[in-house]
Amino acid sequence: MSEDWLDCIRWTREGLAPVIVQEVNTGQVLMLAWMNREALSRTLALGEAVYWSRSRGRLWRKGETSGHVQKIRDIRLDCDNDALLLKVEQIGEIACHTGRASCFFQRLEHGDWRSTEPVLKEPNGIYGS
Amino acid sequence: MSEDWLDCIRWTREGLAPVIVQEVNTGQVLMLAWMNREALSRTLALGEAVYWSRSRGRLWRKGETSGHVQKIRDIRLDCDNDALLLKVEQIGEIACHTGRASCFFQRLEHGDWRSTEPVLKEPNGIYGS
Repeated sequence: MSEDWLDCIRWTREGLAPVIVQEVNTGQVLMLAWMNREALSRTLALGEAVYWSRSRGRLWRKGETSGHVQKIRDIRLDCDNDALLLKVEQIGEIACHTGRASCFFQRLEHGDWRSTEPVLKEPNGIYGS
Repeated sequence: MSEDWLDCIRWTREGLAPVIVQEVNTGQVLMLAWMNREALSRTLALGEAVYWSRSRGRLWRKGETSGHVQKIRDIRLDCDNDALLLKVEQIGEIACHTGRASCFFQRLEHGDWRSTEPVLKEPNGIYGS
C-alpha cells in the first residue's frame, strides 16, 4: 500500500501528531496520546493502538503490560491535517494508568481540580507491585 | 480567585496546552485546539471558548465571526496535567470552518483519506464571500 496517506499528515518538527482517543461504544474521551509515522503505520497494520511515548522516547503498544489494549474501529484526520482521532474499543474498560476509565478525571470545580471518576482497579492490580 | 489551578497545568515551552473539544449533548469530538494561560482564564470568565490561534499568533474567541460559539459545560485535565478536555454546547451545530459539525471529517478508508461528513452550511454563508 502506498504511504501517501501518511504524507498528508502535517507532523510536528519532532515528527509527531496529537491523537485523541475516544471509546467507540460509550463516546467517552479516554486520553490524548502522540504518534509518529511508524506508530500510526503499526497501529493500522496491527489493528491496535501503538503510540509514541514522549517520556520514554520509544514506541509503546497500548496495553502491552496491562492487557488494556485498544482495538481500532475508526481513524480520522482533522481539517488542517495536524490532529488525529481514533475511535477504539477499550479492552478492560480502563485506559488510564491510575485504573480509571479515562485519563480526564480531574474536573475544574470552584477554582480547583477535583478527581471525579472512580478507580475501577488499583494500579498494583494492573501492573503488579 | 487564586490562579493555582492554572499553575497545575504543565504548559509546553511555548506556554500552550492541547485542548480536546467535545459536544456535551452528542458526544461528538469537534476539534483539537490550543490554549495558553490567558485563553483558559478568559474561557472560564466568559463561559465560552477562547483559544490561542497558533497560525494567527493571537487569542481567538471561537465563533467571533461565524457566531458558532461554544458554551462551556465542563473543563477537565488529564492524569499527567498536560492536556485539557472541554465539554461544550456547540451553538449552530457547526464547529469546523468548512461548515461541518466536526473538524474530524476525513476518514481513513482503503489507504486514503475520504471526506465523510456533510457540509451543513457553505463557508461563504458563514463568513461572507
